[in-house]
Amino acid sequence: MADILHRIGTKASPEAVYSALTTIKDLGAWWTTDTTGDEDGVLMFRFGEVGGFDMKVLERDPGKHVLWEVTDGPAEWVGTTVSFDISQEDEWTVLLFAHAGWRDPVEFMYHCSTKWATFLMSLKSFVETGSGQPHPHDVQISNWH
Amino acid sequence: MADILHRIGTKASPEAVYSALTTIKDLGAWWTTDTTGDEDGVLMFRFGEVGGFDMKVLERDPGKHVLWEVTDGPAEWVGTTVSFDISQEDEWTVLLFAHAGWRDPVEFMYHCSTKWATFLMSLKSFVETGSGQPHPHDVQISNWH
Repeated sequence: MADILHRIGTKASPEAVYSALTTIKDLGAWWTTDTTGDEDGVLMFRFGEVGGFDMKVLERDPGKHVLWEVTDGPAEWVGTTVSFDISQEDEWTVLLFAHAGWRDPVEFMYHCSTKWATFLMSLKSFVETGSGQPHPHDVQISNWH
Repeated sequence: MADILHRIGTKASPEAVYSALTTIKDLGAWWTTDTTGDEDGVLMFRFGEVGGFDMKVLERDPGKHVLWEVTDGPAEWVGTTVSFDISQEDEWTVLLFAHAGWRDPVEFMYHCSTKWATFLMSLKSFVETGSGQPHPHDVQISNWH
């Protein structure tokens, strides 16, 4: 098993970060504009021709924690989990991210690790300035987009 | 053991990417302007008050591969390895990155994973445009810089 891990910090509030992770409106402002589904059930994230992911919301603790399970998408993703843990350090809100449970560290995992970093920087920008870089306005990192 | 993995792609040549990983001049253009040492021995990367890292060059294969071992720096880094593998896919030069051998997935590893992503995007920018974002001009991702 292999995990993608990231950490970002922002001076936005824990509530703003939590909202960015749990409301369709805010998720659409930093990850993909094509975000639909049920905030209490299964969220659907789509990226045009590339496809997308369905995420079942397993756990939510307001201002602190979110856990998703990937229920549909690329084979490498299905069954993995995505977690977000929010804490405060002085005036900073810190977000720990883990996309856990990859069966093998395949090249696609390398790609997703870098891509997640750019999307988390998009989240940071969104909560700080109101403007992120969600798909289809996301940063291209390679031939795999 | 836990590894940080990343993948970026660029239309710059494999030779340009290899130069960015093996010459003090080019390393200083995307990672830290305070890069010194011996390109055939130990490279020294410094980040002001934060400290820095000494990297022993273990392997080099022009246009294809670079391997460093961390010989000095934060305790979590010493003994870990940093590798870069370059390949070509059509008109793209693909760079696979691994910072391998972390003893534990500590919070500092989460931070370094995201920070490496931003520095690799700086490398991409440097080989494509001639201008990167090395320390002290690097992108701030959190209270840990």
